[in-house]
Amino acid sequence: MTDYKPHEECGVFGIYSPEKVSLLTSMFYGLYALQHRGQESVGISVSDGDKVLTHKALGMMNEHFRETASEVLPDAYAAIGHLRYSTTGGDDLANAQPVTVRHLGRSFSVAHNGNLTNTQELRRGFELTGSVFQSTTDTEVIGHIITGERIGAENITEAVSHAMGRIQGAYSLVVLSGRELVAARDPNGFRPLCYGKTEDGKYVVASEDCALAAVGAKKVREIDPGEVVTFSPEGVVFNRTRCNRNKSSICIFEYIYFARSDSVIGDCPVHKARLRAGAFLAKSSPVEADVVVGVPDSGLDAAVGYSNESKIPYGIGFIKNKYIGRTFIAPDQSERENMVRIKLNPLAATVKDKRVVLIDDSIVRGTTGKRMVSMLREAGAKEVHVRISSPPFMHPCYFGVDIDSENSLIANGHTVQEIADMLGADSLAFLEIKYLPYLISEKGDAGCCSACFDGKYPVKVTPGSKTRFE
Amino acid sequence: MTDYKPHEECGVFGIYSPEKVSLLTSMFYGLYALQHRGQESVGISVSDGDKVLTHKALGMMNEHFRETASEVLPDAYAAIGHLRYSTTGGDDLANAQPVTVRHLGRSFSVAHNGNLTNTQELRRGFELTGSVFQSTTDTEVIGHIITGERIGAENITEAVSHAMGRIQGAYSLVVLSGRELVAARDPNGFRPLCYGKTEDGKYVVASEDCALAAVGAKKVREIDPGEVVTFSPEGVVFNRTRCNRNKSSICIFEYIYFARSDSVIGDCPVHKARLRAGAFLAKSSPVEADVVVGVPDSGLDAAVGYSNESKIPYGIGFIKNKYIGRTFIAPDQSERENMVRIKLNPLAATVKDKRVVLIDDSIVRGTTGKRMVSMLREAGAKEVHVRISSPPFMHPCYFGVDIDSENSLIANGHTVQEIADMLGADSLAFLEIKYLPYLISEKGDAGCCSACFDGKYPVKVTPGSKTRFE
Amino acid sequence: MTDYKPHEECGVFGIYSPEKVSLLTSMFYGLYALQHRGQESVGISVSDGDKVLTHKALGMMNEHFRETASEVLPDAYAAIGHLRYSTTGGDDLANAQPVTVRHLGRSFSVAHNGNLTNTQELRRGFELTGSVFQSTTDTEVIGHIITGERIGAENITEAVSHAMGRIQGAYSLVVLSGRELVAARDPNGFRPLCYGKTEDGKYVVASEDCALAAVGAKKVREIDPGEVVTFSPEGVVFNRTRCNRNKSSICIFEYIYFARSDSVIGDCPVHKARLRAGAFLAKSSPVEADVVVGVPDSGLDAAVGYSNESKIPYGIGFIKNKYIGRTFIAPDQSERENMVRIKLNPLAATVKDKRVVLIDDSIVRGTTGKRMVSMLREAGAKEVHVRISSPPFMHPCYFGVDIDSENSLIANGHTVQEIADMLGADSLAFLEIKYLPYLISEKGDAGCCSACFDGKYPVKVTPGSKTRFE
Amino acid sequence: MTDYKPHEECGVFGIYSPEKVSLLTSMFYGLYALQHRGQESVGISVSDGDKVLTHKALGMMNEHFRETASEVLPDAYAAIGHLRYSTTGGDDLANAQPVTVRHLGRSFSVAHNGNLTNTQELRRGFELTGSVFQSTTDTEVIGHIITGERIGAENITEAVSHAMGRIQGAYSLVVLSGRELVAARDPNGFRPLCYGKTEDGKYVVASEDCALAAVGAKKVREIDPGEVVTFSPEGVVFNRTRCNRNKSSICIFEYIYFARSDSVIGDCPVHKARLRAGAFLAKSSPVEADVVVGVPDSGLDAAVGYSNESKIPYGIGFIKNKYIGRTFIAPDQSERENMVRIKLNPLAATVKDKRVVLIDDSIVRGTTGKRMVSMLREAGAKEVHVRISSPPFMHPCYFGVDIDSENSLIANGHTVQEIADMLGADSLAFLEIKYLPYLISEKGDAGCCSACFDGKYPVKVTPGSKTRFE
Repeated sequence: MTDYKPHEECGVFGIYSPEKVSLLTSMFYGLYALQHRGQESVGISVSDGDKVLTHKALGMMNEHFRETASEVLPDAYAAIGHLRYSTTGGDDLANAQPVTVRHLGRSFSVAHNGNLTNTQELRRGFELTGSVFQSTTDTEVIGHIITGERIGAENITEAVSHAMGRIQGAYSLVVLSGRELVAARDPNGFRPLCYGKTEDGKYVVASEDCALAAVGAKKVREIDPGEVVTFSPEGVVFNRTRCNRNKSSICIFEYIYFARSDSVIGDCPVHKARLRAGAFLAKSSPVEADVVVGVPDSGLDAAVGYSNESKIPYGIGFIKNKYIGRTFIAPDQSERENMVRIKLNPLAATVKDKRVVLIDDSIVRGTTGKRMVSMLREAGAKEVHVRISSPPFMHPCYFGVDIDSENSLIANGHTVQEIADMLGADSLAFLEIKYLPYLISEKGDAGCCSACFDGKYPVKVTPGSKTRFE
Repeated sequence: MTDYKPHEECGVFGIYSPEKVSLLTSMFYGLYALQHRGQESVGISVSDGDKVLTHKALGMMNEHFRETASEVLPDAYAAIGHLRYSTTGGDDLANAQPVTVRHLGRSFSVAHNGNLTNTQELRRGFELTGSVFQSTTDTEVIGHIITGERIGAENITEAVSHAMGRIQGAYSLVVLSGRELVAARDPNGFRPLCYGKTEDGKYVVASEDCALAAVGAKKVREIDPGEVVTFSPEGVVFNRTRCNRNKSSICIFEYIYFARSDSVIGDCPVHKARLRAGAFLAKSSPVEADVVVGVPDSGLDAAVGYSNESKIPYGIGFIKNKYIGRTFIAPDQSERENMVRIKLNPLAATVKDKRVVLIDDSIVRGTTGKRMVSMLREAGAKEVHVRISSPPFMHPCYFGVDIDSENSLIANGHTVQEIADMLGADSLAFLEIKYLPYLISEKGDAGCCSACFDGKYPVKVTPGSKTRFE
Repeated sequence: MTDYKPHEECGVFGIYSPEKVSLLTSMFYGLYALQHRGQESVGISVSDGDKVLTHKALGMMNEHFRETASEVLPDAYAAIGHLRYSTTGGDDLANAQPVTVRHLGRSFSVAHNGNLTNTQELRRGFELTGSVFQSTTDTEVIGHIITGERIGAENITEAVSHAMGRIQGAYSLVVLSGRELVAARDPNGFRPLCYGKTEDGKYVVASEDCALAAVGAKKVREIDPGEVVTFSPEGVVFNRTRCNRNKSSICIFEYIYFARSDSVIGDCPVHKARLRAGAFLAKSSPVEADVVVGVPDSGLDAAVGYSNESKIPYGIGFIKNKYIGRTFIAPDQSERENMVRIKLNPLAATVKDKRVVLIDDSIVRGTTGKRMVSMLREAGAKEVHVRISSPPFMHPCYFGVDIDSENSLIANGHTVQEIADMLGADSLAFLEIKYLPYLISEKGDAGCCSACFDGKYPVKVTPGSKTRFE
Repeated sequence: MTDYKPHEECGVFGIYSPEKVSLLTSMFYGLYALQHRGQESVGISVSDGDKVLTHKALGMMNEHFRETASEVLPDAYAAIGHLRYSTTGGDDLANAQPVTVRHLGRSFSVAHNGNLTNTQELRRGFELTGSVFQSTTDTEVIGHIITGERIGAENITEAVSHAMGRIQGAYSLVVLSGRELVAARDPNGFRPLCYGKTEDGKYVVASEDCALAAVGAKKVREIDPGEVVTFSPEGVVFNRTRCNRNKSSICIFEYIYFARSDSVIGDCPVHKARLRAGAFLAKSSPVEADVVVGVPDSGLDAAVGYSNESKIPYGIGFIKNKYIGRTFIAPDQSERENMVRIKLNPLAATVKDKRVVLIDDSIVRGTTGKRMVSMLREAGAKEVHVRISSPPFMHPCYFGVDIDSENSLIANGHTVQEIADMLGADSLAFLEIKYLPYLISEKGDAGCCSACFDGKYPVKVTPGSKTRFE
């Protein structure tokens, strides 16, 4: 799936310290570990117990950001951070997070991963009573909601909790106010959120537990769907009034694509889910072949799973030039085509005169897949059998994965055979939908949202509710 | 006055084009010409007739900003820009301008130079009805006011005009909405604002006319105090309902310090005002001397005026190393002291064995002045007579010049002789207040605000009204 | 071997064009493909048929170098480039290559990969007759030798050929003069060098054929040991007077470590040699285990070979954070230790409760190995069996691999069991020396130099001949 | 003379310390003070008493250079530095200085300001005996000469002294070897060179004394023409065997253009020479006018001199935008023309309805002059009288000022009236040649070279001796 980046996926991170210290180093390590969840903008808010200060920048968490943030941000009791991956046109600092809200002498900052389904109604309500907006994000709406609820609430936790009664859809939130850090997750638990503790008594919240490890924190557990957890000088307080008794609806695509493979979400290691996907694929779509290779890096995990199940040897099919960074710009625009030759190279030693199984995690427009198949053939592969470790995308996502309009997806309006022909593959197979629940639990009894594949939305959605505000 | 930078002074710039074109080049040239009015942050908003897009960055309008802005901002019908010079602690992108406001499907962008005197009341009013704020600037409050007035108004011009009935203090505004560019100035005309026209039919608004010249526009005239001018496909519309019949209260410090010396404000060239200041000083505080030198660059204009009036020859007293840019960082922190030796050097050939008159435009903490006097003596000057081309600061400014708290000003609590002693000068004299009106008109009948010198505020102010929101 | 970088290894690249064109794009693609052979400095020389112009810079071939080189270097008939990996202290532009030599109106440029064994005698001879040197490199000596031989030679090819009679040791050279590009390889063929042709008639020379592919050239063949090949308007001329009839002495460490795994050196794909190393290791040092994992990226190839031979399943043992580039600097110096947690993470899903075989290509000081073993144990591995796909380093290299002084190598003075204890491994085994010839040919009849392992130097060497000039 | 930059002018700097310390800070301050003498490349060599290490970079002494130099260069007993201003095509690091030469275990580094007149013969001699060159600079030839003389010499000083018997032309040298710093100046003293001492016992050598002040050194005196001064642990040794008893031939253009106006060369402050040039011009070419203005910054000094002599008031005619640095790039190539409007602006308040005398220090191609005259007229000047504070260039310089070929100079083949017409000036006058000796001494008895104006070369020159080696 290297030719396609699902949009709107983001990463959130927060840290609470009993003492006022510099939290920047921890913020940087934590956000670096989550960088795969968003590369468009990065932001950090810190609270010195009194004021909330925020620094945001477009781009990745590179050195420049770290330096300027260090100059701007003081020692603090708590901090939150956000990495954003956004749709086209939105690469505007106005849409970067966290959003810091000031009202009647109080201020708080909020960062959000997910997508609300009732943003339009909520925002219109505010605008009709005179509120203005400065961005097109859900997060600013959440900021207004919490501000309103804060007026009648005892504290920020209560305000967040009440706000959760009004917002719908997918959200994993971190909120910073005074010396309080609040983490909250929607009642369906669409997006992951967990917390941990460091040996020196700091609490850490993150989209994935790989970020807990990055700052030396030991994971305590996932935040439950519908749960609000508050870290403050009074300790850790759990508010579970909105907790859903039903099964969670964790996004299956977190396991297939988004999350880092060393993260554990729920009880299931992400890498294990990918190995299983490869294994199911080997069972349901076997093929006689000599070697199994994965598209780097998205297909490597499932390729190992396919190989182990099928007993067809695993091979390294491509190598990546590790010196080609983001700073590489093709010297000549017309030479862009050559870039793939520079970045990725087939390993003839692995595939020459072989029947090859090529694994990737998904397929969207098919351009990358076509190129990979053609590279393998040029390197001497006799046959190329493509196996995709997820089902075809068939339906829009309203919960944070901004899949391109249905028409642009290769799976719509094409049979599997047609797609195989377009890729130039000898055969093609997708993972069947029925296996999805078994990716994350052996018994297949874990709840998950696979609406983009099967159209079964866990909550009511209104087609068109993804319209943006301008 | 090289050891002191008055705060809150800003620059605004706007351009209207009948056709949708790239306005970035013009914005860059215009803002470069106004860079002296603010170096802390820079922002540009453009409107393609439908959407308003904004790009802001900390720091000067360097190449990096230009490149990223070019990627982000499309062709447009109109654009506004802002350069910010801010108080400590506020070097936060959240406080950068323009502020873009979105409400009920409409959006507009506003940039502001000046300082409101009733921000606190206005903001509290909004907050009590549920509005939230994301910065601590006046400009965001102005955005709320205009949004509110826009609901019942025919158009953005009417909204701005009504908003002017509610905001008090000093403001020169540019507002961007759809294909309309609106320029407005407070009824006292504290801060300058003028407009011009290019040969190809574009209209340009700027804090100073040097920025009109920079984009090839011919100045039409100043925007009058209290006037609202709208540039749109319907042409240019002048709304003078709030125009003050009384004399304007243009800030005298614009002439003395802020504005670029090739700008003309009102009918008075800034350079001429500075020559006159030097000449008055020569008349009122003469001294027998051999050469008149100015502190580069702040005192050079007045030094020429002093020389021409006194017939004491003009000399070049210091040279600046033009290769020491902002990128120069002392290799060794403890070597910072040497920096002045690197940046500025006395010209012994001019001052050796001479009685020297040293001119500067103002004196605040006195540290720079002391260093200049001492350099001249080391270079062999027999006597050093300091003449300051403005009166001593004695009162706070509520209209956009954020002079440090009264106590930190050298003029408070010290006699002129005491200050001369602190500087190590043989004599010291300031420009007398009575000359101020004559700086900008020969007859002394032009209105101006010189409250920071004489305490006579043109409008009612509440001590403490400069408190910031956090 | 991620804790150790063998020194002095370099990459060379050259291109010849029948027409005068910009060769920069090709140079950049070619050198990018060879970046793994040297990251300390990069240089390019181009010849417009008359003058040779050179541009060099410290560091990698990043964007900055490309931009400045593009400004400095004109269209050309031929060009050579060099990537340098150097010893400590030598990170000086004076030692960067190519070296451009001017003499009696002629100029040529030379770039070199390898290490001469008679540099000291040669250089002293030149100095005694008055020549001076500006660097401490072999390459400058080669420049003097070729200059001398050029006087009595018909052309640059003859000069290079005669020069080869005087220099000893390991060298793969590219020489640029007028419209001629000359490639030459020492009679033992210690370092690789090959050439190819593009569809539009350009000839390309490179250390490895992965760089031919990067510029769209089809490999013709390796340059033979002792061969000189000249590309010029007269066509391609092969001079084989110095060709060694005996077996070549290609450095076995090129296959084990240096070369990119998709390169083919001689007839042997590098990846295949690494798979074989893993397979031999599985045969000679088997162990009962549940999963085989490789150290990224150095041990991955051999791990696949070990897995396929042993039938123990292959697993992904570690993931690398791909966003941590060279620009990453630990915010806090004392936090450097944490860096490894950020860059590399164990995959518990692969190793928990498993008996793990951990493969790497070599082991030098052992610090990295120790850390990897300990990470696997923390992630739950029950047993960790380390297998190294090369024998222990026991002897210095005089041909371009600047292995640290013998004492610093873990293999000296320690038994295998002692090293295993230092690593914290349950068992440890190295590849046996007897397998080395079989890595690059099935029959084991290909010549190679494995002196660093077995002390059998293919040519006479004088201990101490690696002394540097200052 | 802002449209023309004389080539080959360079700056040299050296420092000797009795103790081994970091000399980088001093080198940086000293070279910054000399930056006006060369902006193309910068280099520093330091000697730790044993080895000489060198760091060079293209461009100005910006922060990047300082950082990398700091990493590369250790504490030292002595150091030399060089700033280069070079001809077109030569913007090649190969031509940057200092040049470090290694020979028979010894090494030294040399930096040079000036131009030899017998480089060709010397270089050919070396090449015929087998020496090779890596650049096209005189300096590399000087390095070979000193190396040869060093063989039979007692020490580096004797070698430099003997070398001075073989090289001809203009040179001010600094040489670094072991713990010795040697400064030498050609017997005519074409280029300036002086030395001073710091309070803590360091000795400093520099092209101009402004650089002594920059590092806190007190000037001792100029190095005499033909003198060699050695700073070493044995103290300061003066070798005057080649000292010229005749008058020196210091380049008059150093006073007119090159040197910084706060430098004192010989006994004459540069600023004073420029004031005198203006005064002589006022005497010999008077004109009725209202104001005298100078072209910034090249004409300002002479304008003050003209004003004081003529009693016509001095005025500020132009202001420069101080925020337009080297980083400013016109956003649109076709907008380059506008750049001058951005960088430099006429002050109408000074010139409107006035008869203006416009002073500059020289005129070459005339394009800048034409633009200045036209700007003044647009700003309302009634008359513009151009006065140039040097005679017209009529002859090539062989001593380091690489004036463009004679034909390209406006003064060749045009009468003064024709040039005035080309500039659009109401009148034009140059400084007469007869005044030149009086610029630097009241009696006119100081020796100087003014060959570029009068064709009287102080030493024999061969037309064409400026040919470059390639």
